[in-house]
Amino acid sequence: MQPNPQLNQEGALQHLLTIEGLPASILTHILDTADSFVGVTEREVKKVPLLRGKAIFNLFFEPSTRTRTTFEIAAKRLSADVVNLNIAVSSQVKGETVLDTVDNLSAMQADMFIVRHSQSGAAHLIARHVKPGIHVINAGDGRHAHPTQALLDMYTIRHYKKDFRRLRVAIVGDVLHSRVARSQIHALTTLGVPEVRVVGPRTLIPTQVERMGVSVYHDMREGLREVDVVMMLRLQNERMHGSFLPSPQEYFKHWGLTHDKLKLAKPDAIVMHPGPLNRGVEIDSSVADGPQSVILPQVTFGIAVRMAVMSILAGN
Amino acid sequence: MQPNPQLNQEGALQHLLTIEGLPASILTHILDTADSFVGVTEREVKKVPLLRGKAIFNLFFEPSTRTRTTFEIAAKRLSADVVNLNIAVSSQVKGETVLDTVDNLSAMQADMFIVRHSQSGAAHLIARHVKPGIHVINAGDGRHAHPTQALLDMYTIRHYKKDFRRLRVAIVGDVLHSRVARSQIHALTTLGVPEVRVVGPRTLIPTQVERMGVSVYHDMREGLREVDVVMMLRLQNERMHGSFLPSPQEYFKHWGLTHDKLKLAKPDAIVMHPGPLNRGVEIDSSVADGPQSVILPQVTFGIAVRMAVMSILAGN
Amino acid sequence: MQPNPQLNQEGALQHLLTIEGLPASILTHILDTADSFVGVTEREVKKVPLLRGKAIFNLFFEPSTRTRTTFEIAAKRLSADVVNLNIAVSSQVKGETVLDTVDNLSAMQADMFIVRHSQSGAAHLIARHVKPGIHVINAGDGRHAHPTQALLDMYTIRHYKKDFRRLRVAIVGDVLHSRVARSQIHALTTLGVPEVRVVGPRTLIPTQVERMGVSVYHDMREGLREVDVVMMLRLQNERMHGSFLPSPQEYFKHWGLTHDKLKLAKPDAIVMHPGPLNRGVEIDSSVADGPQSVILPQVTFGIAVRMAVMSILAGN
Repeated sequence: MQPNPQLNQEGALQHLLTIEGLPASILTHILDTADSFVGVTEREVKKVPLLRGKAIFNLFFEPSTRTRTTFEIAAKRLSADVVNLNIAVSSQVKGETVLDTVDNLSAMQADMFIVRHSQSGAAHLIARHVKPGIHVINAGDGRHAHPTQALLDMYTIRHYKKDFRRLRVAIVGDVLHSRVARSQIHALTTLGVPEVRVVGPRTLIPTQVERMGVSVYHDMREGLREVDVVMMLRLQNERMHGSFLPSPQEYFKHWGLTHDKLKLAKPDAIVMHPGPLNRGVEIDSSVADGPQSVILPQVTFGIAVRMAVMSILAGN
Repeated sequence: MQPNPQLNQEGALQHLLTIEGLPASILTHILDTADSFVGVTEREVKKVPLLRGKAIFNLFFEPSTRTRTTFEIAAKRLSADVVNLNIAVSSQVKGETVLDTVDNLSAMQADMFIVRHSQSGAAHLIARHVKPGIHVINAGDGRHAHPTQALLDMYTIRHYKKDFRRLRVAIVGDVLHSRVARSQIHALTTLGVPEVRVVGPRTLIPTQVERMGVSVYHDMREGLREVDVVMMLRLQNERMHGSFLPSPQEYFKHWGLTHDKLKLAKPDAIVMHPGPLNRGVEIDSSVADGPQSVILPQVTFGIAVRMAVMSILAGN
Repeated sequence: MQPNPQLNQEGALQHLLTIEGLPASILTHILDTADSFVGVTEREVKKVPLLRGKAIFNLFFEPSTRTRTTFEIAAKRLSADVVNLNIAVSSQVKGETVLDTVDNLSAMQADMFIVRHSQSGAAHLIARHVKPGIHVINAGDGRHAHPTQALLDMYTIRHYKKDFRRLRVAIVGDVLHSRVARSQIHALTTLGVPEVRVVGPRTLIPTQVERMGVSVYHDMREGLREVDVVMMLRLQNERMHGSFLPSPQEYFKHWGLTHDKLKLAKPDAIVMHPGPLNRGVEIDSSVADGPQSVILPQVTFGIAVRMAVMSILAGN
């Protein structure tokens, strides 16, 4: 078996590239560390000097204001210096490669790179390349992985449901184009969730998913029955190129989460969404803003989880 | 009478949205607080730790480097963490509403939003929506209001003229398209200025202005006679769509402030302008850079006034 | 002789605009100060509170992520507050001049301007205009000067070669369009390098260069023979307008630094490049990444040198 490129020889986390291959002990350690950053109320996340003097680079090869902001806030809460770099693909063409850029920033004493790229494997490439002591966090690469999103989802589930080992979880929607679904499935399985369901139209559920130990449902009502957690995915219209383009109305009719469909889940089921919301497409506004929705707490926990990952990496 | 959405039940300032409806006591409190941030010389504005650990978001739905910079500097002088977000209207179309964006940033523990939007009422909408404890400052919405600009103007007038109750003030130029003029008139009237004149061509003075207790002059020489303060407005060429487009030369001839016209005002009259200057259009360079101009002190005072508003809101 | 606009009457550095006219004592003082910012290993540059509370503006009239980033990092290492301003030329047309912008930022209590502009002399213009106590650093103006780049090159040479007075240095490539070459020649000459060679095609070596006390070579193998230092220049394709456009292959054949050509230099010669690299155009990848290359240490030293310049200016 190949060594995990995210871990050093002692098994300590050096980079966070993907949930795949990470043992439950590391995932749990991240969630426990995040706990320490969430204040007594959910409203407060404490400011701490853990990364004072560290230089963290938001290296965004594709724009994502939302994700960039969450990492920027998390880093500032840890008292790090943050430099934002939006690197258009066009300027990459000017001769300098991604690795030259990384080498230069490393020479400027970068301590950590937050990498967002449209191509799968970009963060892995950078992690393999950097010198020991420099850490890489994957903030989304192509359709591949978005591990901090999956971790904040796990934090949210643990916060509301305590024990992973008794849960039935449904992941609903556009699995095919999702950066998140794969990471979520790995995390849920690793943390011991006994029943993970993937729910969506045939055209949006890749066939490999079945090999990941999940059950697939092509009927939303069936898929939601008696689940504890409903994890909605964003319909990635912007990633669909011709292949399958349902109208929003059509999509909502079959795969939108309404109050009516949600009734089939357990009465205390929580509703999650990675944002940004397509209201009236994959989720009804009354559900997104309703009593079972934990969509905004997810955002809050996301800051704490990113602080946890950064401080663990910097400490290792 | 409707309760003022900017004040809480005890009458303490929660948001700064518009000058309209704010009592003189609050305006004076802001000016007094700003005084404490202006150093012994005009050159120095002290750095203070009043907002350490607070997260302030510059939420700009239309670009304005100048205004964004003044708030960024003011927030940094108060030791706050500042995150700049330039949100193109186009990305708003992608499904997430302004209020979803605000909810997400609130969930990331935003403490304050500085809002700039091309539509009147945007800051009000956000202020009504956010949870208690989160504060909103209007940094310009459409043609409606730009209250910190009006406040820094009041600070400047008080600095040079001491007592509002003996002044004759002329506001000159493109009142119709100005974000500032309305706020200025409200502030001057509230602070007890007995004579406010509005001076400009018929096409650029809205008829409602007369109902605000000001006198209207369509002859600049008449309007400037014996005034203590000349507040020039920027000609908002970029906001005029066809209706009335004077040539710069034409405009300058009738409404540009020259040394010659300024002589009609009191000998110690001060000249103000909100910037950026259209030199040779609404103001002659020799006047803008001349001994009666207080245009650059206005910028300095603007930092202190914004620090004052932020620290008062955060303290309430 | 005209007084040097960079120095005050006591001969202390007020602005860093160009290497031209600076005495060796000031260059050496900057290099010595940079030494104190480079840690025991090359990897570390210490964080210091020397500029706490100072406001530094990155005033970029043409985009340069790389240069902007190095100044931003250097300023943050000195604990300054940094505000980035990318000022498109288009917005300059809106009426406000460069000097109006500078006046406004000065009124906001700017302590230092880092200026990048496509036109030669822009930083000089601003330096002449600002009030005493405000400092200007030229971060590249047109083809004219880029003094901090030349200084970091000198730091690098001194680091590896100790004594300037025994060196033979070759500057190779597109001297005509280079911001750097002129500054490098001045710095090398001032610091006592006895033999400076300029190597490149006739079309890319301006004739004035010969008057600067250097020897010109139009044969790369001749030019590299027995040198201690090879300073490659970037081929500025983007600055060439029609006049002379070699194909990259053609250029590489004659002027690209290969292992083969490098063998003509002294065995312990170092290879430098200001970045970003055009791999396979002016330099072969195996040389850029080879044992004689000090290209990445240059970047590290660049942070220390910029910290040195900023702290010296702020202290004077």
